[in-house]
Amino acid sequence: MPKSSFQEIILKLQDFWASHGCLITQPYYTQVGAGTMNPATFLRVLGPEPWNVAYVEPSVRPDDGRYGENPNRFQKHTQYQVILKPDPGNPQELYLESLKALGIYPRQHDIRFVEDNWEQPAIAAWGLGWEVWLDGQEITQFTYFQQMGGVTLNPVSVEITYGLERILIALNNAKAIWDEEWGAGVTYGEIIRREEFEHSKYYYEVADIERARQMYDLFSAEADACLAQGLLVPAHDYVLKSSHTFNILDARGAISVAERQAFFRRMRELARRVAEGYEEQRKELEYPLLKDEGGKQKAESSSTAPKTILHPSSFILEIGVEELPANDVDTAYEALSARVPTLLKELYLEHGDVHIYTTPRRLVVSIDSLSPNQPDREDLVKGPPADKAFDKDGIALPAGMGFAKKNNVDTKSLEIREEGGGKYVFAVVKQKGRPTHEVLTEALPKLVESIKFEKSMRWNDSGVAFSRPIRWYVALLGDMVISFEYAGVVSGNISRGLRPYDSPEIKISSANKYFDVIREAGILLDKEERKASIVEQVNQAASLTGGEAIIEDGLLNEVTNLIEMPTAVMGGFNEEFLALPRDVLISVMKKHQRYFPVEKNGKLLAHFIAIRNGDDIGVDIVRQGNEHVLGARFADANFFVREDVKLKLEEYRPKLSTLTFHTKLGSYLDKSDRIEKLVNDLIPMLKLENDEAMFARRAAHLAKADLVTQMVTEMTSLQGIIGREYALRSGEQKDIAFAIGEQYLTVPQTIIGLGIALADRLDSLVGLFAAGLAPTGAKDPFGLRRAAIGIVQPLVEHDVDFDLAEAVKKSSKTQPIAVNDETQQKILEFITGRLKVVLNDKGYKYDVVDAVLAAQSNNPAGTARAVKQLQEWTGRDDWSSILDGYARCVRITRDQKTQFKVSEKQFVEDAEKGLYEAVQSLPTKVDSDVDSFLRNVVKLIPSINTFFDKVLVMADDQKIKENRLGLLQSISSLSSGVADLSKLEGF
Amino acid sequence: MPKSSFQEIILKLQDFWASHGCLITQPYYTQVGAGTMNPATFLRVLGPEPWNVAYVEPSVRPDDGRYGENPNRFQKHTQYQVILKPDPGNPQELYLESLKALGIYPRQHDIRFVEDNWEQPAIAAWGLGWEVWLDGQEITQFTYFQQMGGVTLNPVSVEITYGLERILIALNNAKAIWDEEWGAGVTYGEIIRREEFEHSKYYYEVADIERARQMYDLFSAEADACLAQGLLVPAHDYVLKSSHTFNILDARGAISVAERQAFFRRMRELARRVAEGYEEQRKELEYPLLKDEGGKQKAESSSTAPKTILHPSSFILEIGVEELPANDVDTAYEALSARVPTLLKELYLEHGDVHIYTTPRRLVVSIDSLSPNQPDREDLVKGPPADKAFDKDGIALPAGMGFAKKNNVDTKSLEIREEGGGKYVFAVVKQKGRPTHEVLTEALPKLVESIKFEKSMRWNDSGVAFSRPIRWYVALLGDMVISFEYAGVVSGNISRGLRPYDSPEIKISSANKYFDVIREAGILLDKEERKASIVEQVNQAASLTGGEAIIEDGLLNEVTNLIEMPTAVMGGFNEEFLALPRDVLISVMKKHQRYFPVEKNGKLLAHFIAIRNGDDIGVDIVRQGNEHVLGARFADANFFVREDVKLKLEEYRPKLSTLTFHTKLGSYLDKSDRIEKLVNDLIPMLKLENDEAMFARRAAHLAKADLVTQMVTEMTSLQGIIGREYALRSGEQKDIAFAIGEQYLTVPQTIIGLGIALADRLDSLVGLFAAGLAPTGAKDPFGLRRAAIGIVQPLVEHDVDFDLAEAVKKSSKTQPIAVNDETQQKILEFITGRLKVVLNDKGYKYDVVDAVLAAQSNNPAGTARAVKQLQEWTGRDDWSSILDGYARCVRITRDQKTQFKVSEKQFVEDAEKGLYEAVQSLPTKVDSDVDSFLRNVVKLIPSINTFFDKVLVMADDQKIKENRLGLLQSISSLSSGVADLSKLEGF
Repeated sequence: MPKSSFQEIILKLQDFWASHGCLITQPYYTQVGAGTMNPATFLRVLGPEPWNVAYVEPSVRPDDGRYGENPNRFQKHTQYQVILKPDPGNPQELYLESLKALGIYPRQHDIRFVEDNWEQPAIAAWGLGWEVWLDGQEITQFTYFQQMGGVTLNPVSVEITYGLERILIALNNAKAIWDEEWGAGVTYGEIIRREEFEHSKYYYEVADIERARQMYDLFSAEADACLAQGLLVPAHDYVLKSSHTFNILDARGAISVAERQAFFRRMRELARRVAEGYEEQRKELEYPLLKDEGGKQKAESSSTAPKTILHPSSFILEIGVEELPANDVDTAYEALSARVPTLLKELYLEHGDVHIYTTPRRLVVSIDSLSPNQPDREDLVKGPPADKAFDKDGIALPAGMGFAKKNNVDTKSLEIREEGGGKYVFAVVKQKGRPTHEVLTEALPKLVESIKFEKSMRWNDSGVAFSRPIRWYVALLGDMVISFEYAGVVSGNISRGLRPYDSPEIKISSANKYFDVIREAGILLDKEERKASIVEQVNQAASLTGGEAIIEDGLLNEVTNLIEMPTAVMGGFNEEFLALPRDVLISVMKKHQRYFPVEKNGKLLAHFIAIRNGDDIGVDIVRQGNEHVLGARFADANFFVREDVKLKLEEYRPKLSTLTFHTKLGSYLDKSDRIEKLVNDLIPMLKLENDEAMFARRAAHLAKADLVTQMVTEMTSLQGIIGREYALRSGEQKDIAFAIGEQYLTVPQTIIGLGIALADRLDSLVGLFAAGLAPTGAKDPFGLRRAAIGIVQPLVEHDVDFDLAEAVKKSSKTQPIAVNDETQQKILEFITGRLKVVLNDKGYKYDVVDAVLAAQSNNPAGTARAVKQLQEWTGRDDWSSILDGYARCVRITRDQKTQFKVSEKQFVEDAEKGLYEAVQSLPTKVDSDVDSFLRNVVKLIPSINTFFDKVLVMADDQKIKENRLGLLQSISSLSSGVADLSKLEGF
Repeated sequence: MPKSSFQEIILKLQDFWASHGCLITQPYYTQVGAGTMNPATFLRVLGPEPWNVAYVEPSVRPDDGRYGENPNRFQKHTQYQVILKPDPGNPQELYLESLKALGIYPRQHDIRFVEDNWEQPAIAAWGLGWEVWLDGQEITQFTYFQQMGGVTLNPVSVEITYGLERILIALNNAKAIWDEEWGAGVTYGEIIRREEFEHSKYYYEVADIERARQMYDLFSAEADACLAQGLLVPAHDYVLKSSHTFNILDARGAISVAERQAFFRRMRELARRVAEGYEEQRKELEYPLLKDEGGKQKAESSSTAPKTILHPSSFILEIGVEELPANDVDTAYEALSARVPTLLKELYLEHGDVHIYTTPRRLVVSIDSLSPNQPDREDLVKGPPADKAFDKDGIALPAGMGFAKKNNVDTKSLEIREEGGGKYVFAVVKQKGRPTHEVLTEALPKLVESIKFEKSMRWNDSGVAFSRPIRWYVALLGDMVISFEYAGVVSGNISRGLRPYDSPEIKISSANKYFDVIREAGILLDKEERKASIVEQVNQAASLTGGEAIIEDGLLNEVTNLIEMPTAVMGGFNEEFLALPRDVLISVMKKHQRYFPVEKNGKLLAHFIAIRNGDDIGVDIVRQGNEHVLGARFADANFFVREDVKLKLEEYRPKLSTLTFHTKLGSYLDKSDRIEKLVNDLIPMLKLENDEAMFARRAAHLAKADLVTQMVTEMTSLQGIIGREYALRSGEQKDIAFAIGEQYLTVPQTIIGLGIALADRLDSLVGLFAAGLAPTGAKDPFGLRRAAIGIVQPLVEHDVDFDLAEAVKKSSKTQPIAVNDETQQKILEFITGRLKVVLNDKGYKYDVVDAVLAAQSNNPAGTARAVKQLQEWTGRDDWSSILDGYARCVRITRDQKTQFKVSEKQFVEDAEKGLYEAVQSLPTKVDSDVDSFLRNVVKLIPSINTFFDKVLVMADDQKIKENRLGLLQSISSLSSGVADLSKLEGF
């Protein structure tokens, strides 16, 4: 195949989209990070007017600059942007056609729609859609915009953003962009590479921070001035200029976390005002582009009269969707599995087995032997009170007659029954069973509607929200189409085939043919079957290498939900990359690419296994493509690691001073110093000694150093892991390296790791609370909830006793700003809140957790032990008698303001003496130990019961009364610091 | 024909240029005023590497904003930019092909290449080329770049810049762009119009001047920082941002004339550094795009051996060029007319009549009966001294033999002749006449080279400079091609036909067929014939309207030089436009469009006559096109006038405060106030009284008010003329209006107009000199030389006596800054310098002018009279005796430091007494009156002669001597304040 040139791709796309009714416009005249910022998108997606446009957008992202050294990352890349508004109904198919125009045929490749939740906070915009992958390479972003500039979009726009450089690389099966032709015999590199170097250097090293800040201020002031005059496009221009200038500052490392928030707030606010102003302006102009379309044609439902179904028949509902996110495939499965049986019951429909199947493109309900009709039945309908319906002579009054008429029965057939102490008339209404198809026509839309997702989106004027757009329904009872419409889609008997086969229409002649037809089309409907097939193919492929595939459940489940027809494709990569840290390799393969890694004797092999959606035609191209992508990613990582290890880990530490943690709290170097100090304080609290103590100090010293390495800058998720790796390569002790490695785990496995993690998290909580940045509402920009969980959960799981109050106090002393007692208290309460969540999540009952937390919380491990014990106690058969007995003591005393003294001499009855003695004979209570406490209570129960049977606590004699209350108070207080049993159910 | 859409045009051009080997790139990501600023042009035209590129460039020019109200003017218009480097040899033809691709066929239209000298001072760039007109509308700029960023380009790049909006309007024969389709059924107006309004409002009303100034400073500081690091593209980006910000400030009216210079200096300096840096960078990279082309193929000259020509034959040289500017057509005519006969003489070639013909595309030399050979001839060649050549016996010595051998003669034939007092040997050398074709092959390149133009350009690697590129030569002697090469072009016998016929190749079989063939091709070679044809056609067309064409010589000459085949096309315009000022109408028709206006009884008719290059095919389209263009221009003017006349002229005056004259000298309102004051002072000096004085004051008051009207803002050349028009419409007296109207004429016709003009010009001179802005070297940014000429020339022509020193003193008093005596003196000297130029230009002899100016200059009219008289005297037969006599008196006394007293008693001789008496009897001399002075001298001459014959001035007796000297001094001083005769020739 002849090689493509960059400009050919553009010209072909221009022609394609022009011939598909798009306006062709030009890139914007000010630097933008993406085509979305161009007013041809940002403004035009607002409001009701139709808008179809396509344009090239060279997109500038300062912090993607790599000095022209990276084959896939550039400070400027070229997007091809398409906006379709409203959704034409087949945007994915149009998109795939456009790829064919470029010479990319689905059968020759693996083209995938991979979930992507797009969000651009600087312009208050979000949408749902996909990254489109070509043989493992992201080549396009495909998004249904939901909001822009904070304005909810109606109609929704489809945005298709091609990454042209990547497409060229893929088309030419090239290693890098540089030597590919731009056009006219000139290479991309010849045109762009030197520029990449210069801009990268400018953005990272030369741009003057002070001047950039001034520019930012001037730009946003001009935006304000323009907005004040209703000049929206000029205002938008300055918003864009602000945004680009912010990006420069960011690339220059000049923006602290707190500042970032302020910057975003400002940009978002301006973007919102521009968007709202534009909406208003278009309205005032009466939407000039809103051409009357002469009454929208509704899709007509089949006009043939429904046949009659006489016998129980198979039923199929297939909801055809654009590719669902993997999680949503499972969500839909759960929802349908729960809902369908109930629904059938509610509809009085008799049926055989019910099966639910889900793939990324279809949600299927299959019902065997579904009755053709509801059975006839009698319903008892309640009417007015008897005395309003009939007079005392039994003559029907108007109310009675009306009721009878409404229910189509004779007044004579009305019955009088008692209900809730009153008498009412009732009608026995005979319901003729309705035909199933009628019932389903009404019920199926509601069934679809009942499927709810974590995130959902709108796409057409039905206003319906779903995980991704619904494009078809097959609804068949036997061979009869159940007609319904939902989300603007009308049901029928046409399904669609596999994506790589161009999703051909497939007619389903009757429900019982469905499974055969679908299987013939190559689709594995059953998730378990797909999963098994994947496992088998992956293992088989791995065995060819003499190794074993690493099949992790989460990944397997995800991959299974990404395809309809799995075909394993094994590829390799350069063995030199095996020198990279294992975690880097695995992380790239699994997280970024959804590949199964292969290992042998615990060592990775230079192979990976991808799962393609489709058969094995063109599988070599798919392999090459995936190999290229992985190779490029590894080359990237390799470059970083090679550069990084030129210094020892310790040598990175000073550079932490360039990384702002928070303006009020200093740099990461400051934070690192604080962690070191705090770890010193925690060492005795955690009872670390000798080597452990020494390792902990060293690990604390090095813990954050990897943050300024290139590898972590590039893949933040590898923080800690890279620290561990580089620590080892720098000759640090294993224990130290491992502690560094696990500091970001919610539950570090070693006690040293725990120490570092606790210090880090405490420092963040204490510092940020003191800086007034405690989470509010749903907002938690600094992840403090997670930090608090990361304190309590490991303490609980390792069952390590730890005094949180003390630790908070120690941390407070290291902070550069004052942390007063009130704040410390708030921090402790906040941590307690998380502890509660952790315990609830562990399956402990709410009342049990509440009961313990009401009494103790500053030592999470102890609290957890108490909860565990208490929960066990509440499961005992005799629990209610224990609780009852103890409760009697508590209830009768809890309103007393005074703690009464008990004097043996004042006892009158034997029962009280007996109880007193029983109390006296209890063993000394162990702190926060529920078992000890309750074992004591159990011992007291007989005496308590006897006491209450025989003794009147509230004696007339004040002294006697107070003595008795004092005795009970002493029992009641046994729970102090252990649990507040009054919080328990049944108390 | 179906209508075109905007995007179709772009897509077609992309395809066209891509298929012609151009890179297709994208618009730039920062606002630029033109595609030239895009680094794909600005940087890539530098250095030796080839570069062919095409791209769209939305171009932003803030002061072209018209709030979306003007159908042809926008703050953003869309250019399509093509760069061809090096010149492919046929860029015009490629361009015309591209128009065909758009559906524009030359035979259907009038496509013209109209001289344009492109210059962009902000980036220190210039080039020569054309505006391309389509039926009177400029649709493209076509330029051969000569310099960019101050760097001389080698090779030269061809730049083709299409104006896409205008092309769309022309293609669709539309009135305005707004309702034309952009694409996909959406109009251009729907996309752009609101934006035009918003940006116009922003640039003119809202942009914050202080912030823009700050941005400018920040941008240029960043440019500096980038340059310091060798980051050229980032630096260039900031130069562009500076430039755009400057444009905003300018549109906002915030830039004074003096500041403008500083801004431009700064931008130019940055652009220069970017360009030089880029050249250097590419050199260091070893010019990666400079692919070895494997030895350039030289066009081979015809290999057939030249035939022999035996008889005198016709000779034709046709130099085929791309369209020459009208003036250069004449320049070439003059040069060839002067040079060819001399050349033939130098070449000893006998010939008949010589004719020179010039059109915009060919320069033709025709020679009748050119001899086929030079005649044989004898030349006398001087050799060594005779005694070195022969011994005394007449035997040849080595020197003699060598000389003889060198000249190919026998030593015996050497002759001995005397020369300069010495004897030398001479050889009579017989020169065999060479064939004419040989001689011409050597001579013709030099002939072409000898044609020099005011401005010339390079275009290919020959390095030759010419007015526009040379593309072919026909050189025939009889039927024999005279082979030569010059400017990379080889001669032959192929001419090319008319541009609208696609310039077909035309073979010329022999020189005497040339004229017939060219005439057959439709070309009128003879300028006079073309001119006559134009006059005839124009008159004929005008007569159809019942009117008469206004045929002004300059326009006629220009139009004649713009075409090869004239066809008159008459068009009309809406009669409502006739309400516009006549000068506006004529100015637009003549200056902007090169049309002949039509009038009847002194009133314009709503018609115009254009001259098309070509025949009358498609003439209706040509007419419509021209009518559209003119209509649009008139609509523009009409809009402005209609808006303008809503206020009276006087009401504009206060707005002059917004127009800066110069930061040190205030606004135009300040200047206007000063003019008013100064006119008050000049009134008595000019002897104005009563009404005249009143009118002068009023005219001075209103003189500058029109500068802030929209019409003058739009067409600056109409300043004054519009003032007059609006003054009349505002009800001012005619005399006042006329004075306003003629204030900018070099020589106003009325004394009132003169008063205003003098005041205006004096004010500028005095103020700007005082501000330190006197012209230096060739630089005269404020046009002060012209101002000074405008002071002296009218005073001379109107013969009005005027005391310049007094006037300068008066003006000095009105200035806001001090004007000391020294400065005033400098101003007067500067004016005197211009007076000298004016007088020399009038044909007066230099010595005469110098003689008078040495004695008097502060009253130009008087000076001029004196010069005139003196020049007449110097023409008299007896002048030498007059001058001699007077000179004797002057010469003998001029070294005396003392003025001696004359005492009658001291006279010794009669002759001195007689002279003394003659002096005493002279009538009183009239100031600066040469005639009176010289008439006196004449009367003295006999006495002077007698005196010198009889008297020895330098007597031994000191007293007698001094008395005689005193007498002569009194005569010598007669010239004081009149003329210094010692400056005269022959003195």
